[in-house]
Formats: sequence, C-alpha cells, structure tokens
Amino acid sequence: MSTSFLPVSSFELPRFAGVPTFMRLPHIALDHADVSQVKVGFVGVPWDGGTTNRPGARHGPRALRDASTMIRLIHPVHNINPFEIVNCADMGDVSPNPVDVQDTLARVTAFYDKLVDLGIRPMTAGGDHLVSLPVLRSLAKERPLGMIHFDAHTDLWDSYFGGYKFTHGTPFRRAVEEGLLDPKRIIQIGIRGTMADREDIDFAAANGIRLVRIEELMARGVTDVMEEARTIAGSDPIYVSFDIDGIDPSYAPGTGTPEIGGFTTFEAQCMVRELRGLDIVGCDLVEVSPPFDPSGTTAWIGASMMFELLCPLVESAKRANK
Amino acid sequence: MSTSFLPVSSFELPRFAGVPTFMRLPHIALDHADVSQVKVGFVGVPWDGGTTNRPGARHGPRALRDASTMIRLIHPVHNINPFEIVNCADMGDVSPNPVDVQDTLARVTAFYDKLVDLGIRPMTAGGDHLVSLPVLRSLAKERPLGMIHFDAHTDLWDSYFGGYKFTHGTPFRRAVEEGLLDPKRIIQIGIRGTMADREDIDFAAANGIRLVRIEELMARGVTDVMEEARTIAGSDPIYVSFDIDGIDPSYAPGTGTPEIGGFTTFEAQCMVRELRGLDIVGCDLVEVSPPFDPSGTTAWIGASMMFELLCPLVESAKRANK
Amino acid sequence: MSTSFLPVSSFELPRFAGVPTFMRLPHIALDHADVSQVKVGFVGVPWDGGTTNRPGARHGPRALRDASTMIRLIHPVHNINPFEIVNCADMGDVSPNPVDVQDTLARVTAFYDKLVDLGIRPMTAGGDHLVSLPVLRSLAKERPLGMIHFDAHTDLWDSYFGGYKFTHGTPFRRAVEEGLLDPKRIIQIGIRGTMADREDIDFAAANGIRLVRIEELMARGVTDVMEEARTIAGSDPIYVSFDIDGIDPSYAPGTGTPEIGGFTTFEAQCMVRELRGLDIVGCDLVEVSPPFDPSGTTAWIGASMMFELLCPLVESAKRANK
Amino acid sequence: MSTSFLPVSSFELPRFAGVPTFMRLPHIALDHADVSQVKVGFVGVPWDGGTTNRPGARHGPRALRDASTMIRLIHPVHNINPFEIVNCADMGDVSPNPVDVQDTLARVTAFYDKLVDLGIRPMTAGGDHLVSLPVLRSLAKERPLGMIHFDAHTDLWDSYFGGYKFTHGTPFRRAVEEGLLDPKRIIQIGIRGTMADREDIDFAAANGIRLVRIEELMARGVTDVMEEARTIAGSDPIYVSFDIDGIDPSYAPGTGTPEIGGFTTFEAQCMVRELRGLDIVGCDLVEVSPPFDPSGTTAWIGASMMFELLCPLVESAKRANK
Amino acid sequence: MSTSFLPVSSFELPRFAGVPTFMRLPHIALDHADVSQVKVGFVGVPWDGGTTNRPGARHGPRALRDASTMIRLIHPVHNINPFEIVNCADMGDVSPNPVDVQDTLARVTAFYDKLVDLGIRPMTAGGDHLVSLPVLRSLAKERPLGMIHFDAHTDLWDSYFGGYKFTHGTPFRRAVEEGLLDPKRIIQIGIRGTMADREDIDFAAANGIRLVRIEELMARGVTDVMEEARTIAGSDPIYVSFDIDGIDPSYAPGTGTPEIGGFTTFEAQCMVRELRGLDIVGCDLVEVSPPFDPSGTTAWIGASMMFELLCPLVESAKRANK
Amino acid sequence: MSTSFLPVSSFELPRFAGVPTFMRLPHIALDHADVSQVKVGFVGVPWDGGTTNRPGARHGPRALRDASTMIRLIHPVHNINPFEIVNCADMGDVSPNPVDVQDTLARVTAFYDKLVDLGIRPMTAGGDHLVSLPVLRSLAKERPLGMIHFDAHTDLWDSYFGGYKFTHGTPFRRAVEEGLLDPKRIIQIGIRGTMADREDIDFAAANGIRLVRIEELMARGVTDVMEEARTIAGSDPIYVSFDIDGIDPSYAPGTGTPEIGGFTTFEAQCMVRELRGLDIVGCDLVEVSPPFDPSGTTAWIGASMMFELLCPLVESAKRANK
Repeated sequence: MSTSFLPVSSFELPRFAGVPTFMRLPHIALDHADVSQVKVGFVGVPWDGGTTNRPGARHGPRALRDASTMIRLIHPVHNINPFEIVNCADMGDVSPNPVDVQDTLARVTAFYDKLVDLGIRPMTAGGDHLVSLPVLRSLAKERPLGMIHFDAHTDLWDSYFGGYKFTHGTPFRRAVEEGLLDPKRIIQIGIRGTMADREDIDFAAANGIRLVRIEELMARGVTDVMEEARTIAGSDPIYVSFDIDGIDPSYAPGTGTPEIGGFTTFEAQCMVRELRGLDIVGCDLVEVSPPFDPSGTTAWIGASMMFELLCPLVESAKRANK
Repeated sequence: MSTSFLPVSSFELPRFAGVPTFMRLPHIALDHADVSQVKVGFVGVPWDGGTTNRPGARHGPRALRDASTMIRLIHPVHNINPFEIVNCADMGDVSPNPVDVQDTLARVTAFYDKLVDLGIRPMTAGGDHLVSLPVLRSLAKERPLGMIHFDAHTDLWDSYFGGYKFTHGTPFRRAVEEGLLDPKRIIQIGIRGTMADREDIDFAAANGIRLVRIEELMARGVTDVMEEARTIAGSDPIYVSFDIDGIDPSYAPGTGTPEIGGFTTFEAQCMVRELRGLDIVGCDLVEVSPPFDPSGTTAWIGASMMFELLCPLVESAKRANK
Repeated sequence: MSTSFLPVSSFELPRFAGVPTFMRLPHIALDHADVSQVKVGFVGVPWDGGTTNRPGARHGPRALRDASTMIRLIHPVHNINPFEIVNCADMGDVSPNPVDVQDTLARVTAFYDKLVDLGIRPMTAGGDHLVSLPVLRSLAKERPLGMIHFDAHTDLWDSYFGGYKFTHGTPFRRAVEEGLLDPKRIIQIGIRGTMADREDIDFAAANGIRLVRIEELMARGVTDVMEEARTIAGSDPIYVSFDIDGIDPSYAPGTGTPEIGGFTTFEAQCMVRELRGLDIVGCDLVEVSPPFDPSGTTAWIGASMMFELLCPLVESAKRANK
Repeated sequence: MSTSFLPVSSFELPRFAGVPTFMRLPHIALDHADVSQVKVGFVGVPWDGGTTNRPGARHGPRALRDASTMIRLIHPVHNINPFEIVNCADMGDVSPNPVDVQDTLARVTAFYDKLVDLGIRPMTAGGDHLVSLPVLRSLAKERPLGMIHFDAHTDLWDSYFGGYKFTHGTPFRRAVEEGLLDPKRIIQIGIRGTMADREDIDFAAANGIRLVRIEELMARGVTDVMEEARTIAGSDPIYVSFDIDGIDPSYAPGTGTPEIGGFTTFEAQCMVRELRGLDIVGCDLVEVSPPFDPSGTTAWIGASMMFELLCPLVESAKRANK
Repeated sequence: MSTSFLPVSSFELPRFAGVPTFMRLPHIALDHADVSQVKVGFVGVPWDGGTTNRPGARHGPRALRDASTMIRLIHPVHNINPFEIVNCADMGDVSPNPVDVQDTLARVTAFYDKLVDLGIRPMTAGGDHLVSLPVLRSLAKERPLGMIHFDAHTDLWDSYFGGYKFTHGTPFRRAVEEGLLDPKRIIQIGIRGTMADREDIDFAAANGIRLVRIEELMARGVTDVMEEARTIAGSDPIYVSFDIDGIDPSYAPGTGTPEIGGFTTFEAQCMVRELRGLDIVGCDLVEVSPPFDPSGTTAWIGASMMFELLCPLVESAKRANK
Repeated sequence: MSTSFLPVSSFELPRFAGVPTFMRLPHIALDHADVSQVKVGFVGVPWDGGTTNRPGARHGPRALRDASTMIRLIHPVHNINPFEIVNCADMGDVSPNPVDVQDTLARVTAFYDKLVDLGIRPMTAGGDHLVSLPVLRSLAKERPLGMIHFDAHTDLWDSYFGGYKFTHGTPFRRAVEEGLLDPKRIIQIGIRGTMADREDIDFAAANGIRLVRIEELMARGVTDVMEEARTIAGSDPIYVSFDIDGIDPSYAPGTGTPEIGGFTTFEAQCMVRELRGLDIVGCDLVEVSPPFDPSGTTAWIGASMMFELLCPLVESAKRANK
C-alpha cells in the first residue's frame, strides 16, 4: 500500500496543527484521482433532520474531525496500525438539505451508492440516527445485513407527531420493513430509559430482534454479552451502529437524548474490541451533538470509538481484498 | 380589568420561584374558560425547521419564559404598567412537527387563526425566523400589513439547497409574494454581514422595501431612523419582527447566524420605544438559540425586548378595544 | 382515575415544547378546584438559605421542572406507568424568604401542613438539604418516621459559625432531637468526604443511626445494602431523602458540596428500585445547584431520580387509598 | 514608604504564579505586625445573604483576587503608580455567617471599626450590595457621608417578602434613615430596568437624592454628568460604591440582577477617572457573582475597576496623611 | 482566474458541512501542483511559545478555520467578492515546535521564505504575537516595511523574566532593531491597560513610532485616526497586524491578555475598511485563544476580521500582478 | 507541634472565604522566619513549557489552591488529621520562565534544593509532567529513588519534534538515564491510549520498568495491583507521581492529553490509600489544566487526591523526624 495514506505522526506535527481531516488522513473526495485506491472511507453526514428532541448532530462531523486529530497510529491492545492494513481516507461530507428529510435521505444514498461501486467500506460520522437508514439502503442492496447496535434506545418506533415515519427514532423499523436488515441477526445493547409506550419492544419481540437491556449487560458483563452478539451476527456481512448515547451521559453529555445509567467508555472499548473477525461492511458513530458538548469530551469519545471501530473494519476490508 | 391577569410582584414571590410562564402571567390555553378575556397573548413557537445553519431556536420559548420571570411590572421610561392596560396571558406553545416543514407551517397558522378569531394580538416567541410566515398568514388575512423589521439579514432570499423555498432566510420574500406584506410599508433595520450574492437586495430594490444598513443606522442615529420608520409604517396596521441577531453578538451570542458589528441593547431599546402610537397587530422575537447561549444572556435580552415590544402592543390593543 | 392527570406523550408534543411543569403534569395549586383529586404532589422549595458553602440550590426546582419534561411515561424495569396509579400533579413552589431562615422554615411547614390535610404525599424538589426539616415537621406530626437517606454527608452536625443550628448540615440532627425521625430506623448510604471533626459520627453511633460509608457500599454491592435498608426501615411509614451529592460529581457536578468517589447513577437507580413495597409518606431530591451545572446534566439526573422515586411513592399512595 | 508594600512586577513573576492576594500585595491581617503601616486596605466580604434573586456574590472576593493578579503597577492615563503613593495591603476577608443576616452585619461592622481605628481606608470587594451598609456604619460614625454610586438600581427600597428590611435592595434607604449618608450629597448613576413599583424613586425625590438614569447619561455624556457628580459630592468626605451591574451585562454578565442597556467599561473608566481630588474615605465594588461568570470576564472587569478606584482613594489617603 | 479557487456558496453546501479550510478555499500545500497559481495564501501558525500569561493561541488556526466557514463571498460595503480578484488558497499550517522558541522562529521564517519566492502574499492566523517577527523576517528581507498595528499593547518591550528577548510582548522592538520595520512608518492603535513600567512608551517616543491610545481614538473617531494612519503608512509597502485583544474583551474574551475599555467590532471593521489603496504585503490576525473562548465568539470575530483584511490585501496583490 | 500550622475549620470560616492557600495552611515562603519548622511543604510549579498538545497546566497551582480550601481536616478512612502529624505549609510557587525550558528546569531544581536542605518533603502541584524531572534532580541527588506512578501515559519517550528531549512525554526517560530513578523500582499504573510507536514500551521492557495497563488493572482490581506496587517499591525511599489524566476524562476532563477508558476517582483513592507505610520522599499531582476545566471538577479531584497523597507523605515525614 501507499505511504501517502498514513496519518502524520504526532512526533512530527503537533496534534493541534493542520487542516483537520478524520485521523489526519488525506482528503480524497469522490472525484479525486486516487479514489480507487481507498478501501475504507470516513464520511461525514452533517444532518439532524430526523431529530425529535434536542438538535445539533449536524455539527457532529466537524467536531469529530477536530477531535480525531488527537488519535495516534497504533491500537495498544490489538497492537496493530490500522492505517497500514488497507488504505483509509477522509471522503468529505455528504451535502445534506437541512430543510427536507426525503431530499436528504436521497442525497445520502446516492453518495453511498458510489462508495459501494468503488468497493469502499464506509465509516460514517453522523448526524442523527436517521442517517443509518439511507446508508443501509446502499450497503444492503443485495442482501439483508445483520447488525450489532450499541444504543440507549431501540430506534424501532413506528412514527411520531401524527404518523411521520422518518425520524431518528424509527430508522431500524424502516430498515427491517425494507428488508435491509435481517431482524434475527440484530442485537441491540445498552437499552434503557423511560418509554412512551411498549410498541418498540413488541416489534422487536415479534421479529426476533435481540434486546440486551443495560441491567442484563451489567449483570452478565461485556465478555459474555459480546459472545452472544458474535453468535447472533454470524459469519455473514453485518453493519455496526454505535449511538454515542449508549455511553453514560456523564461520559458523553453532548447528545440529544441522554439516558442516565449507561455503560462506561471502558466497557464500550471492550465490547467493540470483540468485533474482530466479523465481516463488517460498514460502521457508523452517530448522535454526537456539539452544541450540548461545550467541553468537547463527547467528540473525543466519539473519535476514540471510531478508532476502535476502524480496527475490525479495516481487517474486514483486508480479508475482502485478498 | 381583572387583577387575575397581573404578574406576581418580585417583592412577594422571589423571581426564581414558581412555574415559569411568560412574564409570570397566567397560563390560559385556547380551551381555557377565561380565554375570551385575553387581549394580548404570548405564544411560543418552539421550532427551527427552517434553519440553514446552526439550530437550537426550538428551545427558545422555554428559555425566554424562564428569563422573563426576572421582568418586573413597570416600564421605567414610559412609566406604564402594560399588564394593567389590557389583559395579557401566556397562551402556551404551538405544537410543531420537528421533521416536517409544511406540516408545521399549517399547525402554526391554525393556532393563530384561533387567536385572530378571539381578537387576541400575539406576542410570539420563536423559533427561527420562518415562524413569521405562518403567523402573517393569519394576521394578514384581510389586508397586507406594513412591517418594521429589526435584523442583521433581510430574509428576502428566494431559495436554498436547490430550490427549497421555505427556510429562515426566505419568509419575507414569501410574505410579499403571498400579499401578506405591503413591500412599500416595510423597513428593515440593522442589515449587515457577508453575502452569498446580491439577490435579496435586488428584490428589495425592485419592490420598494427600505433597507437601513448598520452603517447608515450608526451614522444617522436611532431617532432619525425611527422617524423614517414611523413614516414608512404609517397609521395602518403593521407587524413588528425582531430578530435577536440584529443586536451585536457580543450582547446576544445565542443565535444561529451571528454577524459582528451590530447595534447595542440600548439602541435596540431606544428604537422599540419609538413604536408607540403605531397600530401594531402582532410582534415576534425570534432566533434565540439556547444551545449557543450557555450563560442565558441572550434569552435575558430577548425577554427584556419582549417587554419593550409589549408596551406599544398593549397600547395598540387598548385603542382597538375602546 | 381521570385522564386529565396524565403527562402528554412525547409522540404528540415534542419534549422541548410547552410550559414546563414537573413531568408535564397539570399545575394544580393549593387553591385549584381539582386539588382534592391529587394523591401525589410535586412541590418545589426554591431555597438555599441553609447553605454553608456554594449556593444556588434555590434555582433547583426551575431546572428540575425543565429537565423533567424529557421523562416519558413508563418505567422500563418496573413496567408500570406511575401516572396511571394515582393522580399526580405539580403543586407549584413554596414561596421562600431568601433573607430569613426561620421565616422560610415556617412557610414550608405551613405549605406541607395543607398537603397533609389534603392527603397528598409530597415529592419535593429542593432547595438545599435544610428543606427536609420543615417538611418532616409536617409529615411526622403524628409519629416519628424512619428514613432511607442517600447522601455523601450525614447532615447530623450540631451547629456552624458559632452556634447556628439551622443549616443544610444539621437537618437530621434537629429532626431526631424534635422527635420527627426515629434514629433506629434511619440508614444513611454513600457517606464519604473529609471531616471537620467526628461529631456527626459520634451522634449517629450514640443514637443508633446506621451509616453505610461508600467503601462498604462498594464492597457489599447495592442489593445487599438495600436489603439491610429495607429491614431497618421496616413496614412503618418512612421518608426518603435523596441528596444529589450522593452520586459521584463526575455524574452530578451541579451541587454545592461535591465529594469525589461516589456511587454511579446506575447504582442510584438500582438502590431506589429496591424501595418498592415500603410505606413511603414523602420523598425529596435536594441540592441540585444549577449555577454549578451549566450543561444541565445534574438536573437531568435529578429529574430521572425523581421518576425513580415516584414509582414506589405512588404505589405507597395507592395502597393507602385503597 | 516601604518597598515591601509593592506588588511584584509581571516581568519578574508571571501573572498566573503565586498565592493570589489583591493586586499581589502583601497579606496583612489585622493582627499582623506591620498593620499600622497600612493606609489603604483591600478587604473581601464574601457574603450574599441579602440577595433576593440569583446568589453567588459570596464567591466574589476569591475571583476578584485571582483576576487582580493580572493588574500591573502604573495607571496609563493618570501616569501614577498608586502603590507608591501610600502603603496598600490585602487585609483578608471578613468572616461572614452565611445563615444569618444580622450576625453578619455585626461582624462586618466590627471588622471595619478596627480599620477606622487604624486609619486604614478600605477598598471593599463584595459580596452583594447589602455589604455597603455595615461598612458605612463604621465609616460614617462621626458624620454622614456623601456618596457617588454607580449602579443599575437605586437600592433604596424599603422592604421585601413581607417587611424584611435588610436585603441588597435596601442598603441606602437604611443608610439614609440611620444618618450614615446625607441624601443631598448622593448621586446615583446608570439607573435603569423594570420596576416593581415607584417607591424607590419617590423616596429619592422626597429626600433630595439625585438619580441619573441611563438615558440621561447617554444623552449628556460622562464628562458632563461627572462634573455634576463632583459638585454634589463637594469637598467633604464621600463614599464611592460601584455595583458591577451598572455596567452592561454584555460586558459583565456575572452578576445577580442584570439589566440590559447599561454603560460600557470605557465609560465606567472615564467616570471613575473623574473622581480625583474628591475626599474618598472608602470604596466598594460589589455584586460580582462568579457562578454566573464562567469565563471570568466580570471578575476581570471588577479587578480593573478596583484599580481605577484605587487611584483616587490612595490620593485621598495621601492628602489625609500629610 | 480559475473558478477552482472560489469558496463554495452556502446555498449549495450548508456552512457547517465539509472539511474546514480557511473560507472554504482549496487546501494548496507548498508542494501542491497548483501552488504557483496562488496569489494570496492563508497560513496558520499554531504556536504560543512566546506567551507570558494565559496560553492557548496555538489552537487559534483550527478555531479560525472552523469559524471562517460561516463567511460568505461578497463584502457588503465594498461590494466586491475578494475571491474573484486574485486566487486565494489555504496553505495549511507551519509546523511549530511547542518546546523551543528559536527553532520555531526559524521554521516560520523558512515557510514564509517560500511564500515570498512564490509571490504569495500571506494572511496569517496566529498564534501569539511573537509570530509576527519571523513572518516579517521573510517579508521585509529587502527593505523595512511600514506597519498599521491594531492592539491593546505596543509589544515594544525589551525583555521578560530576566533578559529573555523573544516573547509576545517584544516582537516589534526586535523588528525595529533588526531593520524589518521603519519605526517612523508605524502606527499603533487602541493602546491601553495598566503598565509594568514606561519602557515601551519611551522606546516608541525615541524612535518615532506613533501610539494612538484608546482615549484618543474614542475622542477623534475612527475616520480621523485612520486618515492619519494612511498618511503615516504612505504608499510604500506595509504590513498590517491585528491583535484580537485590541477589540474590547466583551466582544473578544478569548485571548490571553485582555484589557477592558477597548474598541468595538464595528469600529474595527470601519478602521480596516480604510486600508484600501495601501500597498499591503501581508496581514496577520493573532492572539485568538480558543481555550478562553468557549462560545467561539472570538474566533468568529477573528474570521470576520480576516475577511475584512483580505479585501485590501487581494487588491494590493491584484495591483502587484497587473 | 504548633497549632499555627493547622488549617482553619470550615465551622469557623466558610470555605469560600479567605486568601486561598493550599488546604488553608499558612503561607511560609523560603525566607519566612518559621520555615525551619515546616516538615511537609506544598509547592506550586505553574509551568507548561513541556506540553506538546493542549496547554494550560501553568494555571494548575492557582486552581488547586482554590479548590483545596474545600478540604476539611480529617481523613475519613485513615481516621487521621494529617496536619496534626507534622507541620505542613504552603511554600508558594516556583517562579517559572514561560519562554525557556532549560531556564525553568534550573529554577525548579534550585528551589527544591533549598527544600531538601531544610528537610522539607515536597507535595508538588503542577504544572505539566516535565515538572517531575527537575524535582527529582533535587530529591534523588544522593541515590536513585523508586517510583509509583499513576498515569495514562508512560512518559518514557525519547524525543519529539526532531530530537527535542525535554517535554512532558519524556521526564522519566531522562530521570532513568540521569540515574535519578531505579527503573527496577518503578511501576506505572493505568497506561492506555493510542500510540505513535512502541518505543516507550520497549524502553520499559529493556530497563525492567513495570507497566500495568488499564486492562490489567480492571481485571485484577486495585488491591492486588497495589500489593505488587508495594513490593516493587520496597522499603527504600520512593517518589509518587500522580498525573491527573490517569483518571478517566469523564471525571477529570481538564487536562491536556485525555485518554478515555481510565480508572475512577474511587479507584484512585483506594490505590493511594495503599501507600501508607512506604517511605515517600515527595509527591506530585500534575497536568491539571484549568482552561479545559471550566467547571472546576478536575481541580477539585486534584485537590482531593493531594489530600489522599498527603496522608502517607506526612507519616513518612513523621517517621523520618522521630
């Protein structure tokens, strides 16, 4: 692989210096000459048009890029440099339409269709959780995917505000209905919080989606739960969706719908480290809302978790490109 | 008038105590038994669906209510207690749809149609500036209104993001096109900031809308400009729209589209005090965005300016109810 | 029961909209026509007159109301909707006197005497911890109560600043002395922090009050400690007092006297969930200080814990009203 | 004079280093061996027991000390080094009683009585504005003083909350009643804000106190108003009280009772610079509330204004000690 | 000129989207194929190694880039689109050495030497004010420059901390000594603040540097002062240095050495607008310190002022490239 | 021992009052008459000249002093009052040179040499971690020390930015090379975070330094790891260095190089409590960066941990002074 896809070392250039791209990678837009060399692409989707409560996730990609320049090269536990495994790049942002949901959904899918055509596995920075739906419409075109989903909420609701079906509380209901996800290969981890009604749980139960509430996670521990997650995911392609609000809000306050009593960043790291070996076709990290994150702590966690997710993702890409 | 419409004195109940309604007024929803006694109604429109840049104005009404509990009873310059002039009340919030622009526009107009039917003059707390459009659709049903408009921006643009016509940069273009505002009776004061193109200025010029750029305001002073404003407004009914971003962002940082080099709060107060005697059928105070206002300063300015706007509004209502 | 006592669903009205009452319940003041239908009343006591260190708890009720509008209807573990069990309402705030301690103590007791007469069990939002004393003077008029108390501090000191006996460090010393609490039925959980002297511990030991220091809680776990707590409380009426500073300040920084090394919000939830079945005559959640909580995280935890406390409280009220 | 009373130069020791005393002066407590050499003493009164709205001024002295270490030695317009004119020192703080108003009033007066006995002119850092009353009880023991008072509020109210006479809204009413201030030699500059009633203005008019509302100040300019102030003050001893809320809250947000439309820091500097030549027996700078001043801007303004006030104060002390 | 050097319109791509370069310009590093087409280059110097008080200006370029994406295309008063006048680009950051002053000075000069060779006029984003010195070492290689300097401080000190000659308080003393600036063609505007001694003023007086203190600026007004500035600068090449602390800290709190009583952003804009027609070979905007600017207001002002400075700079570049 | 070395009780003087020295101890500078009575001295080193990423630790001592005034007298678990064991004092700050690394290193060592001569064991408040090196140059003059080191990073790197050997990432590499530390008696606990390369780990392995990564700490628990730490440290003199970034950034965000997934404050307390009985010749608490700690939480943790460290330190001093 080319050395031109390696981030600069923090021994050479201080981490606060330079135009901030994801992980200090080269910025390779879709029309760039080198785009065909990219195997894993970071993409921002700066959009919160599906947000039903506190907005601001549209500013997530900017903040995540900024924070990600503090990431170095080597994973200390896996002992790998993911950027040496396959070529990674910052693909820039999808241009959203802040005043129209359907138009933006179409724009996102159009962008990811091009990534799929180029054989680039996406690492998406949201945006709110509705972002996952148009991404899945591209990635799951050929067959439904399994999903390992870290979140405080199921996002399996049917509709809001008198029948509106596209919000950040509904993406996975839609994805199951559209055949993008195989419900029997979905596991949702960290679920908690008060509920408006029980409709999402009923939908999960009726379709075979596995919910792991936070109490179960705390009781069993991450190793045991992740073993089950790996079994549910199986060896077929999966998607990994990480909502930052899965992490406790004392760690990650900068999000629109916080729920107290969540898991720690250490537990988050341990869980994601168990994803190695699975066939991951794409990941997202969503719901970082910088206006509610004045200290930048949440963006820093988001960037750190993107690095964790990147490791199994590049290994998946490597296996696919042998 | 009934004493039951008077705010509680801060000598009786500390200003930080109690359920926060606008100005500590009674909460009289549209289905309340006493609604017919109300002449001026505070209404929140918690919505930022038209925002093209930094969101958060949906949280404006909540923050404005909270800050407004620090307002006392008597205007120190006019030497009037506006709450004794006509009955005022907090009418609650319009229920918006955060994920659909057209649905929300319809919901707002439906709410204000009821106010118009009841003869209640509205004092609106936004929300982003697109809120003014559905309000005007109710208030200007019978005839176009004049408008005195304080803002850094003209909000006269045609469309964004490939032809989308309903954003917080377009409400008054739409209002003129729909015949809700008489362009020859519009004056916009405080205009400044870099420009994407010159289309809004051309539209203003072509239609006879008077723009007073900040440089002109600074050179002439508020008294002279407001004399012209009163002449342009005339004696027919007008609407008053106050975008908090007209005020310099060092005073009012909590807004989505700040522009440096604006007018001060003292100048804002002096300008609004010149509105007495005009026939004001409604006012709004928009674009307070609490997520960008961590200290609450902007909401406090917003509440203070709502009190300034209230004085000429209740006097208009009083004259109309003689 | 009447449906008019149910909070509005967040599917109908976004959670950031509307006049903020506790849990979006109706505001039923003591002179309201429907007050006799209320069984559990939320009351704010916006007062920090007993605070010896950092003030601001007077702003607690306002912030807790605001945050509480993010609470939905159903408890996800108990699987109950507490608002359907007995009628709940927001009773408004006691009017405090910020410049006189004894006057405020009398005002609080006078307010709660009316609640007791009406058979309303109170869920109090402080205010600093001195608030618990005048509340207990009403609730324990007929017999001393037991108490389960979550806190970093015992609040059993005798006096401050040269003999002043009424501060937020002394309420439970006074309550024991006045016969409002039966010391043998008191358990205090989460105690920690440096100490000026050992007087509070000596008082506890001499009177049979059970202190569970944080080290013991961490070593035994919440289930074991709460089993002991239930035994100590017994089947007679108890009061539950929850000082937000029991929770670690990384979770709940917005408080006047933080002590590092506390319990987590998850542990707090688990502990309160063990209160079901006890006969709870009232609860308080105190020491949320918004000026030290700029992100609102502490208020959100406070509101979430009030919902946790509400569940066993409404069940107690239900049993009493059979 | 002794060089031991000079602050350290910022060329020698960086301004962020060292134990923070006022202006980096030596800390000379009342029992210190060198106390008799001090002519002007900085005193903190960390107390907000008279605050009727937002508390926190008890933290003012700490924040003002911290900010004051950024002050250098020489006034750039007067071209004097005030620390060379008479010996200045940090006398420490009065120990307040946060839970009792009358006890604290007595403690403050007892402390200042000692300063008066020692011939030390005080530069007081509040604390809320009630602090001025017990200070005046010491300074005006022998004869009533004149006063130049910068503020948004008159602080001439009679009582709050049902007859309570000692709050931060009442100190100068009390001081006039007690014969500590000669009302005909009082001028209050910067008055503004909504009013609960007109009682304070009536009291001022009835007693000959001169109020300069902000509109008058803006119209006449600071030079003209200060000329009048000097005439009113005359050549007899005066007190200078500077409430930080006189300055516009965009400059000084960290205060309990902000009022928009105030004067600028430049105007504040120009006004205080006109005090030279008057016989000033003491000054205070009050109502800096650090919990509402997260950026420290207000404390920095407060420290800067204390340096401005110091210059005419040391000159007064010099003349008295010739 | 090439359209590839135009920023994207905010009507096409929302302003919060995309990798943040200065003004949304293309990122053209020194080794980029198109570098020879650039005439005006934005350069970040992320360094605060000369800071004697509060650090953080090393984070300035990142924050200024982020804020600058809110700038649109056209200057509303000059009525020009500067990006159409000559090709502008973001040249990236100089790589500083945070732990060595002399090494960094050499790195900066080496970088700017290349710009000079390429005929690119720099618009520098600091960094602290010591940054100006190594830039001038490149730009003034052939002849001394004049300078128009906006600042609260003269930065003409000789040394700190026992003879250390390279700090952010000394750059222009060094530049005059090294023959990089012609002292008789220097004007410094906005000077204020307390002083450690009078050495800087004496140096200015001895060398013919013109100081305009803030009191003089306020008394004469910006038009008059800028007329003098243009006369002093003359028609020969000049440098323009804008220290953000020249602006009042209520506008621009995010800086290391704030001084109250400064000029407004409107005044700053008016002053810079008077620079048209002068021969400007480079500009800098320094001392934005993001850690002291949590709301981002200061960075937004900095970016806005960079746009103001850009207009006369591109016109200078245009005239030089005719 | 003298009672004059006892902090004032918070029952006597509120904790927000008074000139803030460390723990409210007397300020005894090196030239103070009583300096010979001091056995343990708190020293601030306000310097961040070795910081490679986010600066601000120069403001650490000021913030730590302020927070430390909330500490009371008695350790609740050890049940000792450390201030009664040996005389403790605040020795003030070393005067650093913010613009020169080597000069500052020399200044720090010169200061600590005097402490060593006086027999005072230092409790140092940083400052960045490079501060530990010049301190060790004094303390380890006679023989290499062992070290128990709590941190997210090893600080064993060789050089940065092209060979620069003195940064906050290199102090312990230098200390081992200079013979100040015996590598076989070093244990580093809490290590984590991404890595630029593996050089520090290789150095540790080659020299026998024991690294305990966070995963090992979490798996074994603090008791087991600290038993090993005590064995490694042995009975000879050791130094204890506590980098605040060892604690998870949700607890301690105010630091320059945060790494997610750290240990809790409770774990930190438990670990430090296991140091009793070791022969500790000095401790430091470093990397508190107030500009990144707006809420003060990190400084409060730092002060609390300094109290924990103080207890075994005074016991060591006591044993040495028998």
